[in-house]
Amino acid sequence: MEIPEITKKLLAAKQAKKLSFADLEKAVGRDEVWIATVIYRQASASEDEASKILHALNLSQDLVSELTAYPAKGLGPVVPTDPLIYRFYEIMQVYGMPIKEVIHEKFGDGIMSAIDFTLEVEKEEDPKGDRVKVIMNGKFLPYKKW
Amino acid sequence: MEIPEITKKLLAAKQAKKLSFADLEKAVGRDEVWIATVIYRQASASEDEASKILHALNLSQDLVSELTAYPAKGLGPVVPTDPLIYRFYEIMQVYGMPIKEVIHEKFGDGIMSAIDFTLEVEKEEDPKGDRVKVIMNGKFLPYKKW
Amino acid sequence: MEIPEITKKLLAAKQAKKLSFADLEKAVGRDEVWIATVIYRQASASEDEASKILHALNLSQDLVSELTAYPAKGLGPVVPTDPLIYRFYEIMQVYGMPIKEVIHEKFGDGIMSAIDFTLEVEKEEDPKGDRVKVIMNGKFLPYKKW
Amino acid sequence: MEIPEITKKLLAAKQAKKLSFADLEKAVGRDEVWIATVIYRQASASEDEASKILHALNLSQDLVSELTAYPAKGLGPVVPTDPLIYRFYEIMQVYGMPIKEVIHEKFGDGIMSAIDFTLEVEKEEDPKGDRVKVIMNGKFLPYKKW
Amino acid sequence: MEIPEITKKLLAAKQAKKLSFADLEKAVGRDEVWIATVIYRQASASEDEASKILHALNLSQDLVSELTAYPAKGLGPVVPTDPLIYRFYEIMQVYGMPIKEVIHEKFGDGIMSAIDFTLEVEKEEDPKGDRVKVIMNGKFLPYKKW
Amino acid sequence: MEIPEITKKLLAAKQAKKLSFADLEKAVGRDEVWIATVIYRQASASEDEASKILHALNLSQDLVSELTAYPAKGLGPVVPTDPLIYRFYEIMQVYGMPIKEVIHEKFGDGIMSAIDFTLEVEKEEDPKGDRVKVIMNGKFLPYKKW
Amino acid sequence: MEIPEITKKLLAAKQAKKLSFADLEKAVGRDEVWIATVIYRQASASEDEASKILHALNLSQDLVSELTAYPAKGLGPVVPTDPLIYRFYEIMQVYGMPIKEVIHEKFGDGIMSAIDFTLEVEKEEDPKGDRVKVIMNGKFLPYKKW
Amino acid sequence: MEIPEITKKLLAAKQAKKLSFADLEKAVGRDEVWIATVIYRQASASEDEASKILHALNLSQDLVSELTAYPAKGLGPVVPTDPLIYRFYEIMQVYGMPIKEVIHEKFGDGIMSAIDFTLEVEKEEDPKGDRVKVIMNGKFLPYKKW
Amino acid sequence: MEIPEITKKLLAAKQAKKLSFADLEKAVGRDEVWIATVIYRQASASEDEASKILHALNLSQDLVSELTAYPAKGLGPVVPTDPLIYRFYEIMQVYGMPIKEVIHEKFGDGIMSAIDFTLEVEKEEDPKGDRVKVIMNGKFLPYKKW
Amino acid sequence: MEIPEITKKLLAAKQAKKLSFADLEKAVGRDEVWIATVIYRQASASEDEASKILHALNLSQDLVSELTAYPAKGLGPVVPTDPLIYRFYEIMQVYGMPIKEVIHEKFGDGIMSAIDFTLEVEKEEDPKGDRVKVIMNGKFLPYKKW
Repeated sequence: MEIPEITKKLLAAKQAKKLSFADLEKAVGRDEVWIATVIYRQASASEDEASKILHALNLSQDLVSELTAYPAKGLGPVVPTDPLIYRFYEIMQVYGMPIKEVIHEKFGDGIMSAIDFTLEVEKEEDPKGDRVKVIMNGKFLPYKKW
Repeated sequence: MEIPEITKKLLAAKQAKKLSFADLEKAVGRDEVWIATVIYRQASASEDEASKILHALNLSQDLVSELTAYPAKGLGPVVPTDPLIYRFYEIMQVYGMPIKEVIHEKFGDGIMSAIDFTLEVEKEEDPKGDRVKVIMNGKFLPYKKW
Repeated sequence: MEIPEITKKLLAAKQAKKLSFADLEKAVGRDEVWIATVIYRQASASEDEASKILHALNLSQDLVSELTAYPAKGLGPVVPTDPLIYRFYEIMQVYGMPIKEVIHEKFGDGIMSAIDFTLEVEKEEDPKGDRVKVIMNGKFLPYKKW
Repeated sequence: MEIPEITKKLLAAKQAKKLSFADLEKAVGRDEVWIATVIYRQASASEDEASKILHALNLSQDLVSELTAYPAKGLGPVVPTDPLIYRFYEIMQVYGMPIKEVIHEKFGDGIMSAIDFTLEVEKEEDPKGDRVKVIMNGKFLPYKKW
Repeated sequence: MEIPEITKKLLAAKQAKKLSFADLEKAVGRDEVWIATVIYRQASASEDEASKILHALNLSQDLVSELTAYPAKGLGPVVPTDPLIYRFYEIMQVYGMPIKEVIHEKFGDGIMSAIDFTLEVEKEEDPKGDRVKVIMNGKFLPYKKW
Repeated sequence: MEIPEITKKLLAAKQAKKLSFADLEKAVGRDEVWIATVIYRQASASEDEASKILHALNLSQDLVSELTAYPAKGLGPVVPTDPLIYRFYEIMQVYGMPIKEVIHEKFGDGIMSAIDFTLEVEKEEDPKGDRVKVIMNGKFLPYKKW
Repeated sequence: MEIPEITKKLLAAKQAKKLSFADLEKAVGRDEVWIATVIYRQASASEDEASKILHALNLSQDLVSELTAYPAKGLGPVVPTDPLIYRFYEIMQVYGMPIKEVIHEKFGDGIMSAIDFTLEVEKEEDPKGDRVKVIMNGKFLPYKKW
Repeated sequence: MEIPEITKKLLAAKQAKKLSFADLEKAVGRDEVWIATVIYRQASASEDEASKILHALNLSQDLVSELTAYPAKGLGPVVPTDPLIYRFYEIMQVYGMPIKEVIHEKFGDGIMSAIDFTLEVEKEEDPKGDRVKVIMNGKFLPYKKW
Repeated sequence: MEIPEITKKLLAAKQAKKLSFADLEKAVGRDEVWIATVIYRQASASEDEASKILHALNLSQDLVSELTAYPAKGLGPVVPTDPLIYRFYEIMQVYGMPIKEVIHEKFGDGIMSAIDFTLEVEKEEDPKGDRVKVIMNGKFLPYKKW
Repeated sequence: MEIPEITKKLLAAKQAKKLSFADLEKAVGRDEVWIATVIYRQASASEDEASKILHALNLSQDLVSELTAYPAKGLGPVVPTDPLIYRFYEIMQVYGMPIKEVIHEKFGDGIMSAIDFTLEVEKEEDPKGDRVKVIMNGKFLPYKKW
């Protein structure tokens, strides 16, 4: 996986300033996952959002255009090798068809949009071991007929 | 993708009896997604759960052992071609690294379990178009050191 | 490529009755490409549409449920070997990035939907050799921020 | 995906001069998609066209030979990961065989050329959400017998 | 590689009748390679040609429609394992770029058509070992600009 | 595809001196395709041939050893994306088995050598569009039994 | 396989100081395999552990943050080519299903964790040839039902 | 994954007789993992061992030759999709290079044999969750020089 | 790997008659490896050789034509999973380039033919463990220039 | 294929000094193929052997440690494109199963070691064309039972 130069620069600044993504969430007024997505250049910020991110990280405003551009998306190898990311691949392999059945039953033929889409990560404290909660929320798009 | 024979038999019975997964949820006392997962043979039922599923579908109890067995899991091609399932692959490609960053920041080094894990699908009504909500909830597993 | 049994049955009936897709378009009130898509089980018909297709092809109404079901979509090998279909793959390889640039410039960050989407095939007569016109029309979906 | 150096240089100049592809279309007298294709080095310009593109972008005429050369074509990974480009791959997977059937029925055995071929992108305004229109137009090439 | 049933039937009849492809060439009035291509269902015969092939092989005229249909083309694995066929793959790997350079120099930007195309196989007797001569002849298609 | 440095150097010199491959053919006394193959480092020249090529291109004789070396051969991706080169892959996919049948019938079990092999490219002028003629000529190698 | 810069630096220092992994085990108070895993950046050290590793290797404490970071994991090609590592792939291919059967029988449906997991390598002296002993120890994780 | 017919037959008999692999271990005098490996046809039994396995399972001695044969080994897809088996793939991806370093340091250049090799699975009871212990033991094979 | 029906039939007859390949070598007058190659349908026998093989195995002479035909060759998956066959793949990965260097140095540019080629397997008794000797012998084919 | 820097350095020195591998064999007292394998960093030399190789090539003894290290092995792409190396892949595809049958018959279940293994290349002069002889010699390793 080739991490873009701009991503490395932002992550290094974030570490140097000891800022968390939650801090950036407060500074920018956007969810921390979305901000991480901009930093990895998988989402495009507006000029204003880019400016706020750079300001929070104490970086030059000259980088604004690098955060508003639209690069080719997709970061990983075909099958991810990182164990954390692989688990999402495994979920798709194991639960893909069951989810498809349930969604079609509830909504008809169509898909959950991955564009008109939000994703949040929450920490659920639990004495038996904390839990990761990932909430995906995508518009249902019915297939058009013509 | 090769759907197992037992899966086809159960889905046909479900369609013939016009039962929804929500109906099965009531009959079995387990979430509809989990039941769909058992039907696709990606999860194993207890004898009691298998019996209830077969009863609800009016199928022979002789099939119990087919639902309690542990087959090799994983249904799809390496990169899924079905658009609904592909969107989950795309989410992993586009949001995988950002999610990884946020989880590590909140929890340290480790992963979200895909085994001590639940997944729910909800329909969120919305005048601009209903939305699909997928809630994943997995135990955080910290890497052991030794 | 494994063509589904139901597809073979419908294509054989269509050939036997010497019906063109244009004839089916008239009988069903839907575009011929969409009807071919239903026949290949890449789109799902309503009960009424399925009934009309089967009626036009002189086939049993018992097959209705096979045309209204939602099978896993995607027909081909990873890189298509059929020359006609490969040309669409080649277009994606050669023109993909240029189209991406032009769409982002006209619309901002987002995609052309392949779900809220129609596709028409027209024959353009030309003395130097007839031309195939393929018109794709998909809703622009802007990336949501959150 | 490795973007050629010359492509980066031209896109940077275009951004610096705040020119749109539509502006280049006017300056060069060629369609904006074709110009984007030349910039991505997937098409070769004549000396005159190259000169006009460079002039419009305020770049040295020394680069003419880089735009008239014939590099190896094809930009992407085998299955594209960028969501916008992937949708064209999905269209090929889902609609490939139906399109093949319809084209063969209208034209006989052969293909739509991807060489004697044009592609236009239009924005169709729509109160329910603007639409992307992609019009492909390729000469039908019948298989030769011998 | 899955050889179609109809291909096996025709090859068995050809062997039983001890007919060579050269005999079929005489009976049908088409080149032997093209006839072999029809038999492998990679080319489509006219009704008349199909009828002549079947007649020469003493097979039922009911099979005509199987030889005039347009199946999905492409027979092999991604990289062929058969040594004879692999050599053509090797030629493409080793001589592909040199051929591209020479063709572009002689013709400009474009391709050799594989559709408006003929291919002949000749045996060249040679005391040091007979030689296989493969003559490909395809229309040059220049890239269209627009 | 990674073009070797020496290849780029020779092609640049050839362009600067405005020499065609046909000119090099005259200067070296070898076919233009073979010379292009040496330049792409897929064939090895003798010291004398290397010297003549470099002399014709006005390059230092110090490069002789780079043209007489035996590098690992094979230039492309598994499935070529360049449309001109892909057509040769398509020919192998579509015509591979038919050619195999015809060659076996004419020669018995064995292959056409890709080593004791020549390849020529000719331009055939034609009012309906010029044609590319590719003539391959390889020794037939019968399988040895032991 | 691309070995990270930091890994090369640490291995070079280890070689220069002629330290074995067993020496590092004593200096750090962690198992030698785990330390090798940190050095290859597949595990993350605490600040204290990183400091001890660097101290033992006589390297600058400035590198601490490089050993505590969480990079994307996974070092190898899809199928490893190194013979030593391939044997573990072969074990998975040959013994994977048998191990699965035995584990399910002993524990029910679930997996052996690769996160709550330790791995030790021991040398077992044997006059007929020393033996490598690899002891894996992972928590059994039962599938959750919901 | 295609499970051989003979494997299915043996596993069904084992389930019908409610025998565990530990029971088979007692009946045959071989480790349970090795017996599971024979049943999956990844290892070959002697006539005596095959006979004992079949006797214990109450199956016909006619099947002896099916358990003593040497089929092509290797059960899975290139990257396993079953979560339990995948974890062994992940261990190879994450810990492969570290293990290699430690083994080379302890033994020199060579490998752990996967042929002169045993593998045991043990259950380690633990109040915080039982643990799976996998003990691999393979002869070290030093590279021969010549 | 799909073993052809005819191969299974011959191997079953060979096992039933308790004939070794060495016995077949005597009966047919060809090397045992070549005979095994014919049986796996990777080489073609003459009518006389086929007849002798079938006679030795007590099988019907009707099968002669199945052993003289020229099927598509190549038996395995891209990377073999069988450990015995994989070792030959590993040899190619590890020793491929060194062998290439030595052969080019001894012979110049060209290859070892795999067609004008013999392969023998011998057992070398050795008190430290018997050894397998594989002797490959192929004609050197120099690259032709033209 | 990425040739290591150290390999390029040694091969350049060998060419400059006009030494053959046979010369190195005399200087080092090891077979020429093994020495080529060390140079390609697929085998590890002892300090003494490394020193002799470097001495023979007139290179600094500082490079000793680069020839005694144990790098990750495996040089090529999954399917080799170089024609000389590919032939070994083809041999494995075509003769793999036949060799397996013959070895199992002569030795029982097990493999030919590729570690306790030697490989020699000989030139066999022949008036009809010289022949390459490759002699592989590996210890037979029987599968252990436990």
